[in-house]
Amino acid sequence: MENLIRYAEKLFDEVEIAVYRSRDVSASVELNEISMASARSGAVTIVRGIKDKRLGLAIVDSDDEKRVKEAIEQAAKMAGLNSRDEKWVSLPEPGKYREKPEPNYELKEASSDVLVEMLVNAIKLARKDDEHVIVAGGEGGVSWEERRIINSHGVDVFQEGGAAFFFIELVGKKGNTVTPGIFDFDARRDLNLDVEGVVEKAVQKVRWAYSVSPSRNEEVPVILAPWAIAGLFSYALLPAFSGERLVKETTPLADRVGERIAGDAITLYDDPFHPLSIDPVVADGEGVPTRRNVIIEDGVFKGFIWDNYWARIHGTESTGNGKRDLRSGGINIGFHNVVIENGKRSLEDMIADIEHGYFVDGFQGAHTSNPDNGNFAVTANPAFLIENGEVVGSSVFLIAGNVYELLKQAAETSSEQRVMPFRNTMTTPYVMFENVRIAGK
Amino acid sequence: MENLIRYAEKLFDEVEIAVYRSRDVSASVELNEISMASARSGAVTIVRGIKDKRLGLAIVDSDDEKRVKEAIEQAAKMAGLNSRDEKWVSLPEPGKYREKPEPNYELKEASSDVLVEMLVNAIKLARKDDEHVIVAGGEGGVSWEERRIINSHGVDVFQEGGAAFFFIELVGKKGNTVTPGIFDFDARRDLNLDVEGVVEKAVQKVRWAYSVSPSRNEEVPVILAPWAIAGLFSYALLPAFSGERLVKETTPLADRVGERIAGDAITLYDDPFHPLSIDPVVADGEGVPTRRNVIIEDGVFKGFIWDNYWARIHGTESTGNGKRDLRSGGINIGFHNVVIENGKRSLEDMIADIEHGYFVDGFQGAHTSNPDNGNFAVTANPAFLIENGEVVGSSVFLIAGNVYELLKQAAETSSEQRVMPFRNTMTTPYVMFENVRIAGK
Repeated sequence: MENLIRYAEKLFDEVEIAVYRSRDVSASVELNEISMASARSGAVTIVRGIKDKRLGLAIVDSDDEKRVKEAIEQAAKMAGLNSRDEKWVSLPEPGKYREKPEPNYELKEASSDVLVEMLVNAIKLARKDDEHVIVAGGEGGVSWEERRIINSHGVDVFQEGGAAFFFIELVGKKGNTVTPGIFDFDARRDLNLDVEGVVEKAVQKVRWAYSVSPSRNEEVPVILAPWAIAGLFSYALLPAFSGERLVKETTPLADRVGERIAGDAITLYDDPFHPLSIDPVVADGEGVPTRRNVIIEDGVFKGFIWDNYWARIHGTESTGNGKRDLRSGGINIGFHNVVIENGKRSLEDMIADIEHGYFVDGFQGAHTSNPDNGNFAVTANPAFLIENGEVVGSSVFLIAGNVYELLKQAAETSSEQRVMPFRNTMTTPYVMFENVRIAGK
Repeated sequence: MENLIRYAEKLFDEVEIAVYRSRDVSASVELNEISMASARSGAVTIVRGIKDKRLGLAIVDSDDEKRVKEAIEQAAKMAGLNSRDEKWVSLPEPGKYREKPEPNYELKEASSDVLVEMLVNAIKLARKDDEHVIVAGGEGGVSWEERRIINSHGVDVFQEGGAAFFFIELVGKKGNTVTPGIFDFDARRDLNLDVEGVVEKAVQKVRWAYSVSPSRNEEVPVILAPWAIAGLFSYALLPAFSGERLVKETTPLADRVGERIAGDAITLYDDPFHPLSIDPVVADGEGVPTRRNVIIEDGVFKGFIWDNYWARIHGTESTGNGKRDLRSGGINIGFHNVVIENGKRSLEDMIADIEHGYFVDGFQGAHTSNPDNGNFAVTANPAFLIENGEVVGSSVFLIAGNVYELLKQAAETSSEQRVMPFRNTMTTPYVMFENVRIAGK
């Protein structure tokens, strides 16, 4: 790779080569049967070079020297055809990395057999727990990735690691009642996925869903489950923390650093090294050291996250949040593992305190949220009715609101925390919001 | 491959091995600059075996004998763990194929250089035609695919071929007016993509879009452009033609064969051999011969399309519409190239006849359509206002309706036809619908 950088340096003022090797095994369930097992592996190399402030970028799905060389030449040709990006400053310089976590090599060799067995077991357990349950869907997967990022300023970092995940979707059919699809899941850096726990939690939710209650317009305490929070925040809130949006004036948080934007209960940071993280990277997609970036501390907004390009334009430093998009080859500002800090009491204790309210497991329509102002309109489904400290049934309702108003209503976070490999990986507790205005459906 | 089938036959009652080798080169534009060039290639092998009516399916991203053998064993293990599918009849028998079209080997060797040049030229042309235009996005691509499907009943078919496509998205900024994103595109089985024509058409639409007119509630003639038709029909109409939905009773067309469901002007069929088709396959994803399947003839519904599995359950024959999903490995009922027959007059002549109406280039929100009943609610954007036989500006409005009511309002199709590599590949003319109820926005 070093000789390829030397070769590329002759064609560019500065250049970066990033190599990603991956291996994925997976297995799927459809309607109570294993529908597929797969094994995939491959390599992708991305060359990003700058000549006279003109950018060239080429992608090739190989780490073969000859093909990478062709990609370097392709990128150089492209740079020659593009016009100058006057905003360009430079690629990152080497930084000081944290100590790399020990990779779990068991994941590198995992076979889909393990996943098939896991899923067969999950189907058996679910249908034993409740004969009215159909395992409508599900998947287990193990991924392994090796990344090397090297640039002409001396950045050279190699990282490897893997993760395993597992989810099921149950539907209960009892009498005339058909429940909505009920999900549960687990994700870890080893193969000890909690199949029994996932099935138990999902079946419990199906049981709640058999008893359907109407909803009405009212203001109630609402507990959002991790999956609901990840869905809503990924679209309505997290984009607003991007430095690119600060520069482009498309975040409502400009000039609000130091202001209270959430209830005391909310501390939110990005950190790939959180114990539950499934991807503890020491460097981001362009080789900048990752770190713990606090974004909201006890309700107070602390600042934005940056990649190298936008940070330099703004006159600040990358926070290690340059994420590589393997399809476009480019670097976008993104999160490694968004953590909402957990609280002291269990979810059960939090529910026990609610006289009348809801526990929302998932939102539909979160992708229509507007991160420019935080407005959202979502359907809470599945949502569970809490009466006198106990879940007594399920319901469906709408919440149309603003994520910043919602954040101020955040009153408590649970002691349990779960990691979700969603659009952005998030590690979050259950969060209770007070006086949430809901619309009956 | 034959020896692998022999090996697999020992483990299954019947078995199929499908190998897909592909090569793709592409280049992209973002904000007037070439943002990326890429070259990817790979192989995927899918093994589908049945033992005692139990299905096993394994995917491996290789055509290497050793790895395919592992996939065969994986599939056999899975079949052993699954329960019986009592509905299973058998894999297809060999059929008689049409003569294969001569592949264009120029596409097999294409380099992304050609695409980069094409895009650079498009940017230059667009900005020369109209200095207020930004080429917000765009992509050019050339793909090549080699497929072999072989099964234990004697099916053994090899096909190869390629296609090239090209699209641009323009935004015009003039005074305080910012137009919506305006698309145009071309797709062919050779490299003679009509860059100048695409740019000219897109720039023309941007010019129309500078002059924005309000819309109001009314009933008007509306001409839908191919892109709008492909968007709406892919979600609201085409799924209803699937034999699987007939069996599952989720199509509104059951018992309606022979009935008039559209205006006389509408003849709709599926045929990979249409001259504009970009994928003229002689066999579908499970090796069944493809053919011209007429679905609507002069407004009359003629019948459903089938893959092998659902056809045998229904007691009929596959129509050659088993499409392979390379992610799940499975076969789904799908289309090769949905053709709406063209008419006699040009789009220009059709527009010249309209005193007051609209020409709709694209729909937003078509994916929310309900194929169970044909209901849809979409935003027409970009839409262009026609007054006294000429396009005079642009507008935005809503259409909430039912696709079968719309079909009956179809009055004329243009002589021009265009092929769109959309969700389903469609080859369609511009279609004029009478008395369409629109809601102003």
